[in-house]
Amino acid sequence: MKAGELYQTADWKNEKHVPVIECPDSVAADQMFDVKVTIGKEISHPNTTAHHIAWIKLYFKPEGGKFPYEIGGFFFSAHGASTEGPDTSSVYTHHGVTCSFKTSKPGTLLATSYCNIHGLWENSKTLGIK
Amino acid sequence: MKAGELYQTADWKNEKHVPVIECPDSVAADQMFDVKVTIGKEISHPNTTAHHIAWIKLYFKPEGGKFPYEIGGFFFSAHGASTEGPDTSSVYTHHGVTCSFKTSKPGTLLATSYCNIHGLWENSKTLGIK
Amino acid sequence: MKAGELYQTADWKNEKHVPVIECPDSVAADQMFDVKVTIGKEISHPNTTAHHIAWIKLYFKPEGGKFPYEIGGFFFSAHGASTEGPDTSSVYTHHGVTCSFKTSKPGTLLATSYCNIHGLWENSKTLGIK
Amino acid sequence: MKAGELYQTADWKNEKHVPVIECPDSVAADQMFDVKVTIGKEISHPNTTAHHIAWIKLYFKPEGGKFPYEIGGFFFSAHGASTEGPDTSSVYTHHGVTCSFKTSKPGTLLATSYCNIHGLWENSKTLGIK
Ligand SMILES: [Fe+3]
Ligand SMILES: [Fe+3]
Ligand SMILES: [Fe+3]
Ligand SMILES: [Fe+3]
Repeated sequence: MKAGELYQTADWKNEKHVPVIECPDSVAADQMFDVKVTIGKEISHPNTTAHHIAWIKLYFKPEGGKFPYEIGGFFFSAHGASTEGPDTSSVYTHHGVTCSFKTSKPGTLLATSYCNIHGLWENSKTLGIK
Repeated sequence: MKAGELYQTADWKNEKHVPVIECPDSVAADQMFDVKVTIGKEISHPNTTAHHIAWIKLYFKPEGGKFPYEIGGFFFSAHGASTEGPDTSSVYTHHGVTCSFKTSKPGTLLATSYCNIHGLWENSKTLGIK
Repeated sequence: MKAGELYQTADWKNEKHVPVIECPDSVAADQMFDVKVTIGKEISHPNTTAHHIAWIKLYFKPEGGKFPYEIGGFFFSAHGASTEGPDTSSVYTHHGVTCSFKTSKPGTLLATSYCNIHGLWENSKTLGIK
Repeated sequence: MKAGELYQTADWKNEKHVPVIECPDSVAADQMFDVKVTIGKEISHPNTTAHHIAWIKLYFKPEGGKFPYEIGGFFFSAHGASTEGPDTSSVYTHHGVTCSFKTSKPGTLLATSYCNIHGLWENSKTLGIK
């Protein structure tokens, strides 16, 4: 079995699990810029003790480079559980994050995410340098 | 040794390691709202292969509750290393993040962070419900 | 509020949440050695979709040093949820881990852990160099 | 770009980055068992401030199931940096971990890992039920 077989993808407008990557299509070299990665932008995903998005990761592969760099890992931890039982705390973390990074090279962003019952999902976006 | 002894804090306007928590002072019950947590808002912290902020965590302790909930853990992974050596990739993740959560109760936010050479830091902020 | 107020501790023989640190009392300088950190060695902790240990972290503060080093963060991810509902997958990760590190200096190990409904816990152990 | 393109693999006896999964070929149903995952079992991988293994993840896909479960994520945090510069602390975390889980079903284990300069690697192992 290969890792690649475990990642699912689809059009995020039709499939609620697909991470949506929002950032400019091209950015200034060596200047920090924001990247927003969310699940469920069009069709919302459940967020309950029993079913939720646990994390999003973001990678960047520079054009012409051999290896991807991990930009960050973002873990969503609160899903309603309390000592009174599942879905009783009222505290829920949303499955979305905005982070920032910089690069001197164009390349491709890859976002991956994990639903605790529907597994691994992915999406990508090309990034240019102005 | 107790965990509490390992966390340092100070006024973030004078000490670059202290996490700065930015969100409204009070929010609507059960409505997702954004929380921005950053290091170095006033005095910037280095971001190099040898010296960087590795992560930020965010906790929320509801008023009157006994236990804190972890909202999220945010790991900043790219710090310039490449096969050519330290600080040669041009790819650096900024030590800041915006996440979202909801709660029906007021309470206190606690942000913690870790510098790979200067250890653990903390800051907190009170959150009201409108 | 200070981070230190959020960590609870007790005798691990009486309190199931306290992380137990198992390693030699003293080790050879600059030689990797194993550290086992577990929850519930004497009194087992639940492991269900609604109530489980999410992670253990291990820190080491060298004697005479100012700052602690993070040795590792260990996240236990599977707690029985499947598309059929909570506690239906049969797949559960145990809340314990063995890792390894090396140091030339004596110091103190600190283990922290997080129960998704009972919050943060801690324990420590002194480490000597032979 | 697809996630699958980013993962590299090879025979771990010849390629130092490939995670090695060590556990019984078949285990008793619903009984916790140990899984050791390490990098560099045959050919050791560097562990320096500028070049190291940052983490290992372990997944399990039950036979006949549609989705993989994440068993755990294990982050190796100490790589020799101190306030005196890179590779001056003497504290290094080894890139290997032993965790435990249980399952009632046979399936496939997948281990992934990340070198901060050589990217993502993977390996898998079939698991039977006695
Ligand atoms: Fe889902
Ligand atoms: Fe620092
Ligand atoms: Fe508990
Ligand atoms: Fe490498």
